[in-house]
Amino acid sequence: MKLKWLSALLVLGALFSGIAVKAFSLHQSAASPEPDRSAIIAILSEQQAAWNRSDVPAFMKGYWNSPELSFAGSSGITRGWEPLLSRYRQRYPDAQAMGQLDFSELEVHFLGKDSAFVLGRWHLKRSSGDAGGIFTLIFQRFPEGWRIVHDHTSLDSPTPR
Amino acid sequence: MKLKWLSALLVLGALFSGIAVKAFSLHQSAASPEPDRSAIIAILSEQQAAWNRSDVPAFMKGYWNSPELSFAGSSGITRGWEPLLSRYRQRYPDAQAMGQLDFSELEVHFLGKDSAFVLGRWHLKRSSGDAGGIFTLIFQRFPEGWRIVHDHTSLDSPTPR
Repeated sequence: MKLKWLSALLVLGALFSGIAVKAFSLHQSAASPEPDRSAIIAILSEQQAAWNRSDVPAFMKGYWNSPELSFAGSSGITRGWEPLLSRYRQRYPDAQAMGQLDFSELEVHFLGKDSAFVLGRWHLKRSSGDAGGIFTLIFQRFPEGWRIVHDHTSLDSPTPR
Repeated sequence: MKLKWLSALLVLGALFSGIAVKAFSLHQSAASPEPDRSAIIAILSEQQAAWNRSDVPAFMKGYWNSPELSFAGSSGITRGWEPLLSRYRQRYPDAQAMGQLDFSELEVHFLGKDSAFVLGRWHLKRSSGDAGGIFTLIFQRFPEGWRIVHDHTSLDSPTPR
């Protein structure tokens, strides 16, 4: 009789443990949680709108405000939120240099519950000459929301400037 | 007596479930699990060695063998393992075009238990002219091991060719 109870106990224990792991991994493997996708796309829309009214600090809100933020571009790697802000201000000193930014062909790929990458195209329409290319943005979820933790942006070849 | 067994059963069940979740979340929050970091670095070392003996198929083993694999380069986006293999074969038809590849300044950043990105530099030493730049590789863990699911590779500017 005791052995029977012990077996039941072990079976139930294993069951509980199985349920816990299953619940976790189901959440984990969710391919594209729609609210998260929308939140990420909204950040990129806000960045585009901020850029197009020449508001670089508002554009920078999409990035993780950390010295560990990284940006890989044609001129190498920039590290940290403040240095990236300086880079944008230096390369795009005024509304004419900034032009009109358009993000397109955005694809959000989730890598887990709290991380994703976005592959997309950028295009700058400017009187001094257009520019465009591809970007890979790595997003992570923070208490304050999704933020870009790494940006790899490249120019289309042949380079238009 | 039955009630007492039931209580014990529930306590043990809860305990099992607690242990399972704890083990999972500890694993989850590990910032840089050393064996995973080593496994990822090993894949890049194998890729480098394969390239340097002109073995493109062996080099391709580091990539996720899927039509969903993506590669963002100076000539746009290539999708799928087979098309990427063709792209490498076309652009690097022989040992002379392939040259000697060197990966350096590798940084592995974990995004969760099963995903990471690697930021690094590549350099090709060739008699026809060197080339180099930066790459962002997104890795995911599969039953067969870690694989690159997305590669964004850019050339240093000014482009050397």
